[in-house]
Amino acid sequence: MESRSIHRAALTRREALLFEAGIKLGGIFHQYLGVPVSTRTAAGLARTIEHAVALQPFVAGVRVRIDPARGGALGPGRFAYRYLLAEMLDVRVRLVDHGEEVVARLAHRPDLRYPLMSVTAVRTARPRRPGRPRRTT
Amino acid sequence: MESRSIHRAALTRREALLFEAGIKLGGIFHQYLGVPVSTRTAAGLARTIEHAVALQPFVAGVRVRIDPARGGALGPGRFAYRYLLAEMLDVRVRLVDHGEEVVARLAHRPDLRYPLMSVTAVRTARPRRPGRPRRTT
Amino acid sequence: MESRSIHRAALTRREALLFEAGIKLGGIFHQYLGVPVSTRTAAGLARTIEHAVALQPFVAGVRVRIDPARGGALGPGRFAYRYLLAEMLDVRVRLVDHGEEVVARLAHRPDLRYPLMSVTAVRTARPRRPGRPRRTT
Amino acid sequence: MESRSIHRAALTRREALLFEAGIKLGGIFHQYLGVPVSTRTAAGLARTIEHAVALQPFVAGVRVRIDPARGGALGPGRFAYRYLLAEMLDVRVRLVDHGEEVVARLAHRPDLRYPLMSVTAVRTARPRRPGRPRRTT
Repeated sequence: MESRSIHRAALTRREALLFEAGIKLGGIFHQYLGVPVSTRTAAGLARTIEHAVALQPFVAGVRVRIDPARGGALGPGRFAYRYLLAEMLDVRVRLVDHGEEVVARLAHRPDLRYPLMSVTAVRTARPRRPGRPRRTT
Repeated sequence: MESRSIHRAALTRREALLFEAGIKLGGIFHQYLGVPVSTRTAAGLARTIEHAVALQPFVAGVRVRIDPARGGALGPGRFAYRYLLAEMLDVRVRLVDHGEEVVARLAHRPDLRYPLMSVTAVRTARPRRPGRPRRTT
Repeated sequence: MESRSIHRAALTRREALLFEAGIKLGGIFHQYLGVPVSTRTAAGLARTIEHAVALQPFVAGVRVRIDPARGGALGPGRFAYRYLLAEMLDVRVRLVDHGEEVVARLAHRPDLRYPLMSVTAVRTARPRRPGRPRRTT
Repeated sequence: MESRSIHRAALTRREALLFEAGIKLGGIFHQYLGVPVSTRTAAGLARTIEHAVALQPFVAGVRVRIDPARGGALGPGRFAYRYLLAEMLDVRVRLVDHGEEVVARLAHRPDLRYPLMSVTAVRTARPRRPGRPRRTT
């Protein structure tokens, strides 16, 4: 019950996980915008964000993709790199607590002109038999 | 139903609001740490954070308090100001969607050595009679 | 001489001020990108950034302008606000130390596709007579 | 002369480099505070910051060290990780332009209660003979 005891409100595990999923995506968006990035460094930055998110409570999987090309044309000479923009980010995070699972995503939606954070899936895992590995994202 | 249509998962309004509440608190934490602050500027910074959060979807109320004194002793001379630390922040945000309401809080918990984000209240508002004003936080 | 004593390298006051001017502009750029902003909140956010910068060593004046319209078309409905982008920012900061003065600017340069930080002016102030006020930016 | 042409003020290469050095350190400080970090992830985060800074103009070398232990005792259970604090950071950056060189450092100074950015060295490199390698930091 530790997962619920931090909340004064009475929440189901699933509800608490949805709150936690929002925390992770909101945090990523507001932490990393502005980091200098290029096609050469994008994958390393993505891995570092994944490792940071993986430290946070209830995170069972996280996948970050950064596509610098979505930042448009490069500047000349020494200005030929970019700063991380919302449009470059595609993040999927999976949280688990005692068999409850929430998957959420941050991805830019050109039609909404907005970096949309949304919940992709919520499910209750069936008990797994020992030794059956499972994808982490 | 617009509020639910952004999610691929089937969520209740309450569940979607919990996800949104997490987004707001996670975002505040990761956006503002490091802003130079003093006892003279703390209230203005708090108001600006409130106005920024109030732009975000479903936010019906937000209250930010910043206590620079929690940053410990000041440095000498020109170093006598502080940078915003997690310990200084106390944030309460209220989200509403069609009568569903979620209140969440970010506050440092010395016992956990952690900036805890938690859900304070979830409730379904009774229909209000016209003309009855209501506190926003 | 306190201004120079923090440096192990032998710097003139003017050189030390140029280093300090860079700190301020680099800090602004990397602190505030991603803050939710609208035409209604832009001026308040700009004032708050000014007050934060004014706390930092050697700052004698700072002027921040934020133009959300440079973020392009708005999204629909609840998505009709923006996040602070480099393109929206125009910052001028003035640093003074014992009569030496440095003015620097951060402004997006469409031709370079780059948020350019540059030094606008360096000068040695003539001694001022008492009672002569002076513009702060 | 490209290095000087971005400035409206007349600057020597050395002066322009000092301004640029400040930009890099100010940016690092205000970009990364708040990133979740542990002893296991600290080195990877440091490398990612180095790669980001290395993209920026005039940077010839950069070394970032992150010591999470400076964040004090850990919280219990799922709270047993930290957020990046100024106290954990030790950064050295080296900028070069046509033989002029500036080395600057960001390191917490407990005596000042302040994350001090300062210039460690400025020098004019002697012309190097071909084939003589040189340390990058």
